[in-house]
Formats: sequence, structure tokens, C-alpha cells
Amino acid sequence: MHTDTSPVTPAARPGDALATVDTPALVLDLDAFEANLRVMQGWAGRHGVALRPHAKAHKCPQVALRQLALGAGGICCQKVSEALPFIEAGIRDIHISNEVVGPAKLALLANLAREASLSVCVDHPDNVDALSAAMTRAGAQLTVLVEVDVGQGRCGVADSDAAVALARRVQAAPGLRFGGLQAYHGAMQHLRTRAQRAQAGAEAARRAAAHAQALRRHGIACDRITGGGTGSVEFDAASGVYTELQPGSYAFMDVDYGSNEWNGPLAFRHSLFLLSTVMSAAAPGRAVADAGLKSVTIESGLPSVHGRPGLRYVAANDEHGVLAVDDGAEPVLGEVLKLVPSHVDPTFNLHDELVVYRGDTVVGIWPISARGLSR
Amino acid sequence: MHTDTSPVTPAARPGDALATVDTPALVLDLDAFEANLRVMQGWAGRHGVALRPHAKAHKCPQVALRQLALGAGGICCQKVSEALPFIEAGIRDIHISNEVVGPAKLALLANLAREASLSVCVDHPDNVDALSAAMTRAGAQLTVLVEVDVGQGRCGVADSDAAVALARRVQAAPGLRFGGLQAYHGAMQHLRTRAQRAQAGAEAARRAAAHAQALRRHGIACDRITGGGTGSVEFDAASGVYTELQPGSYAFMDVDYGSNEWNGPLAFRHSLFLLSTVMSAAAPGRAVADAGLKSVTIESGLPSVHGRPGLRYVAANDEHGVLAVDDGAEPVLGEVLKLVPSHVDPTFNLHDELVVYRGDTVVGIWPISARGLSR
Repeated sequence: MHTDTSPVTPAARPGDALATVDTPALVLDLDAFEANLRVMQGWAGRHGVALRPHAKAHKCPQVALRQLALGAGGICCQKVSEALPFIEAGIRDIHISNEVVGPAKLALLANLAREASLSVCVDHPDNVDALSAAMTRAGAQLTVLVEVDVGQGRCGVADSDAAVALARRVQAAPGLRFGGLQAYHGAMQHLRTRAQRAQAGAEAARRAAAHAQALRRHGIACDRITGGGTGSVEFDAASGVYTELQPGSYAFMDVDYGSNEWNGPLAFRHSLFLLSTVMSAAAPGRAVADAGLKSVTIESGLPSVHGRPGLRYVAANDEHGVLAVDDGAEPVLGEVLKLVPSHVDPTFNLHDELVVYRGDTVVGIWPISARGLSR
Repeated sequence: MHTDTSPVTPAARPGDALATVDTPALVLDLDAFEANLRVMQGWAGRHGVALRPHAKAHKCPQVALRQLALGAGGICCQKVSEALPFIEAGIRDIHISNEVVGPAKLALLANLAREASLSVCVDHPDNVDALSAAMTRAGAQLTVLVEVDVGQGRCGVADSDAAVALARRVQAAPGLRFGGLQAYHGAMQHLRTRAQRAQAGAEAARRAAAHAQALRRHGIACDRITGGGTGSVEFDAASGVYTELQPGSYAFMDVDYGSNEWNGPLAFRHSLFLLSTVMSAAAPGRAVADAGLKSVTIESGLPSVHGRPGLRYVAANDEHGVLAVDDGAEPVLGEVLKLVPSHVDPTFNLHDELVVYRGDTVVGIWPISARGLSR
């Protein structure tokens, strides 16, 4: 049996004051979170595109269920194993926005495809054949999208002949159904100005449209073009090319996305914080908090200190966060700080539970059930 | 009930060929690991210092039990909650090499102190009082070391008057026993040349010795001076000052430590690898592996590709590792690569299980039971 929480007691219980939560603890401001969900769902609806929020950002079924309740048609996962807790939570429409390679993963995928409506991506003919063999063996059906590279330079084919050949191979393969194109450009999400993102988004949409046209020229219907992230949805939604958006971070925000320039209606709020306690203040100008690399990741920059002027998080060790302290801003030992993580996705992946609060009161503990499921 | 593995099936089973392990998977070469343990234990023994390996590096009771079987007298943990799985595994001598602040942590510490012989660090008088109150309430006894800053600039007091005052306060506090000094200098571990580390180590030892002398001048016995890491043990052991060493990474090594200059007898072997599958090879000169930021951390640099010339890991996204491919070195889809993580400690903290192998055969799956326990 698997439970989703750690062997120590939870950091808090519903009804507790937020100030008493044991730290480090990942906490969610429910008001800000719900506002973010409504903004994104409204944006997608106004532009007539489907919203399929990415669960790799949070790995938490309780988050996904709230997105679905507001109108999302399904979710994305990034790995096969990651989809399992969401299927267990009753979610039945999951796009695995990635290539799935290797016998153990294909066997798991085929088993899950009998329980839920799944789609995956391909960018190689051998993978099409392997997917088909696995589905046939399990008596399962799978929707397959061809991934095209629209500027990211990672997965996906870049030329339309290859995309057409893959689509035909999928159409001819038992157990598979061709579902359209994935055209995701991760690197453009963090371009700082709207003008930069508009330009990269226009180029991505142009390339995606060209691939779709090539498919149609060859008599292959392409009803679904999926892609987009928090930083690009403004432009993807209005492109007339994308039919489905995959953002994840918008529900939470982080220091990195917070540094982007935003269109007013899409100015998402910080809803996700890491509570951390000051556990050393032995030298002037310096203090140490109890959250380091094992509670927050720093590949996109250091976390920021929220709502507490005079303190800056300046270095992360395994279990220590070193703080620079301005004169007159000295914290007391035991003071609890609210940090804003710099990168939502890998930070969620460090935690087993999300402490959910409204106002100053804890109202729930949501298991981060897909934490660590990277296979 | 808590189990230590993920809800999906294990990545492998004993008897499996290493080549069939599902990926991403953290794997341990048992021959290299055991050789590293013997080298470090021998080094400590020859210099007459105690070895107390740090469990924050691996969070795995099976690793700690093997270190104890070879002669280690106890282990270190970095957080109170982290100690729990090691106590459950029967380990009875644990130094928490950190300050413990906050009511929930003090209550847990007091409970655990009734089950095992624990020590912690202090660098603030208020914390001494809080520890004493918690121990008294629980009817427990705790050994307390004063942490001194010997060059790291993190926790610890820098002047001997403060150290003496803290030691006296501990001596006078019910439930507490003064245990000596912690003098750890993390930043020096990764100075690249032996000469640089010898110099920083000599300065750290000089400062630690001065604090110990001040204690003795005030009639306070100081029988234990603990500190040292993988990069500094060569000098700490020979210093005549340290009585106990706290290294952790030596059992595994990583890209960062592999970049240090080593004394021949202490040239530890890489025993820890991350297996990752090539899941996209759609463009010339590029491939993509299935291990990214959620399987390996990059704050100390990117992982390296082991024993496979012509491939370099050049960028990490959440679940993708982008590889640069030399002409003629193209991988096939599904090829499994051995990556060397750049930083052992936070990488272990991403994984629920360690796949242990000898030669080409899996011989065990060791739960990383303290993964995520940062409170």
C-alpha cells in the first residue's frame, strides 16, 4: 500500500493557524489559486480554445480536479507513471505530452490506456511501431500526436515531410489513432517582454500551421494542435492555430514567471509559498532559514522573501537558506518567512504534501501524489 | 502506514540485468561503494579519529548500516525528521549537525531523544533554553554541541566568549549535557586544489582549537570537536584538532567532487549513477534523455555522461536532458546511458529507491526512506 504523506506527522491540520505550520512547508493561498484558475479558464473560453492544464507543474490530483471543475477538458502529464495518481483520482482524459520509450514504460502505458483515454507524442518511426505492438498486445487503443519542433530545439521533427510520414505510419498502425500535432516551445515562456514572446509565439504558430497544412494536403485531418505554456498562452490562444493550451505554472506563479511582463488580464497572483523558519541569527547582517536545496530548487534563480522588507535569500545549501539582513530588519529566532519559489515544477516535486489555506487558516492538506514519479 | 517506494512497480528486481532497469533510476555500484567505505574508514582509523558519516548525503538506512558495520561509531543527520527512519532501522547514535528551532521540531526531538542517543548544535542562548524546556517536559536527555563558525559564514558563533557563554548555559540547563564543539566549513570542500583545501583546513582547525582552548581555560572540558567533509577529511584527520569526521559524499562521489584534486589514497570511485533512456533523436547532432531536473539537480553543474564518448549532457528541463551528439556517436532510440550526478545530496532526495548492483546484475532495492524529510 502506498500513502502520499511522509512518515512524520503532517506539517499542519485543517483549522490550524497558518503561523503554526511546521516548516519547511509548501503552502497554497486558496483565494489567489482560485482566482488564477478562473482567469486562465476565462481566457481560453473567450478565445475558443480548449484548456488542458499541465499536471507536471503540481503533481497533485486535488489541483487537477479543481481545474476540471472549472471547465478544463482534461489534463497533461509528462511521464507515464505520473499519470497513475490522476487516473486513480478518477481523471479519464490525459495527454502525455512527451515521447514514451522503453519496454517497461510501454507496458504500463498500455495497461493505463485500458483505464483512461490517453494520448502521447511521437517523433520517430521506431517508436510508432513499438507503441502499436504494445497496444496490440494489451488490446488497448491509444491516440498519438506527432510532435513538431517549433523553435524549442528539443523533441519533435522539424520538417513537414517527416511529420506527414509519421502521421501516415500512425494511421496504418494497429492500436493507434492519429490525433494531431503537438507544437510546444518551452524556451519562449520566459522571454521577459510581451513583444519578445509575441514574436516567438507568432513564429511557433506559423511553423505549426505549416505542418498542419502539409498534413491536410496529404489528406490527413489535423483537428488538434496542442501546446503553449503560461508565458505564451496570451499569443497561442489568439493565434487561430492552437486548438488546445497546456499551461501549468499560471495557477501558482514563481519568481521566474513573476519577472515576465504581463498583459493586465493575465497578471496571475502568487499563490504558492514555502514557509521557512529562521533557525540561526548568530552574526550581524546574516540569518539562516531552514529551507535549502531539498525544499526549493534554484536552477531558475533563488527564492524571494515575500512581504518582509530587509531580508534577502542570498544562498542555498542542502538544508540552509542564507539570508542577508539589512540594518534594523533583524529577524528573531523562530520567525517564519514566506518564500516565493523560483521554479514551481521541480519545487512541487520535492514535497509530499501541500498545505492549503484561506486567509490565515489551514483548510486542507493535499497529497502531492505524483511526486517523484518520473518514469 | 508509510512505505518507502513509489506507487508504480520498482524500477527493477534483484536478479535483473542492469540493462533492463526502468529509467530514470538511481543505481549504486556495490563494488565501488564498498571500496569507498573501506578507504574512508581506514583513513579515519589510521589517524585516530572517529568516523560519523553524514546521512543527509543518501537518506538511506541500508547505506548507514553498512558504514556502521565497517566501524563508524554513529551517523549524522541534518534535520530532526530525517533521523526518524534511521532510528527505526535500529541506529542509536545520531548527531543532528544543525540547530533545531520551532515547537513542533523540539517536541519531535524530545520524543526521539528517549529512543536514541542524540546530539544537536546551538548558536543562540534562546535555543538552549527552548531545548532544555522541551527535554524537561518529555523527561529526555540531550547532548548539545556549540557550533562555531570556522570560515563558512553560515551558522555558529565566531568569538570564543560567545562559545564559552553558550557552553555554560548548556551545562546549567536541565535535560542538556554539553558535548563539545561543531566546527564545519562546507565551502572549503569544493576548493579544487589540495593546496587550497589544506590552507582553508588549517585555518578552520586553528579557529576550532582556539575555541576549545578558551573552553578549557574556563574549566569546561571539550572532548569532542566534530566537522569535516569529503573534501577536507585529508586535512581534518591529520589536524590533531578534530576528533570526529562527518563526510557523506565519499561513498558515492559526483561530478563536483570528481573535479577536485585528490591525494592518491583518498581517490574515491564513482559508485552512484543515474540511468537514463534516450527517448528522442529526431535531429542531427542532438538527442534527448528521459532524466531532467526532477531526477538530478544541477545547482553544482550538469551531470556527465559516463563511459559513452561523443555524448554530452548540455541542458536540463523538468523531465528532459538534452544531449549534444558528436558525428558518428549517434545513440539509438532506447539506448540507456549512465549519468554521473553533479551533486549527490539533493539528487538522492529526488528518489524513493536506490537500485543496487554488482557487475551487471541487480542485487537489491534499497529504500531512500528519509527522502523528503526536511523538517
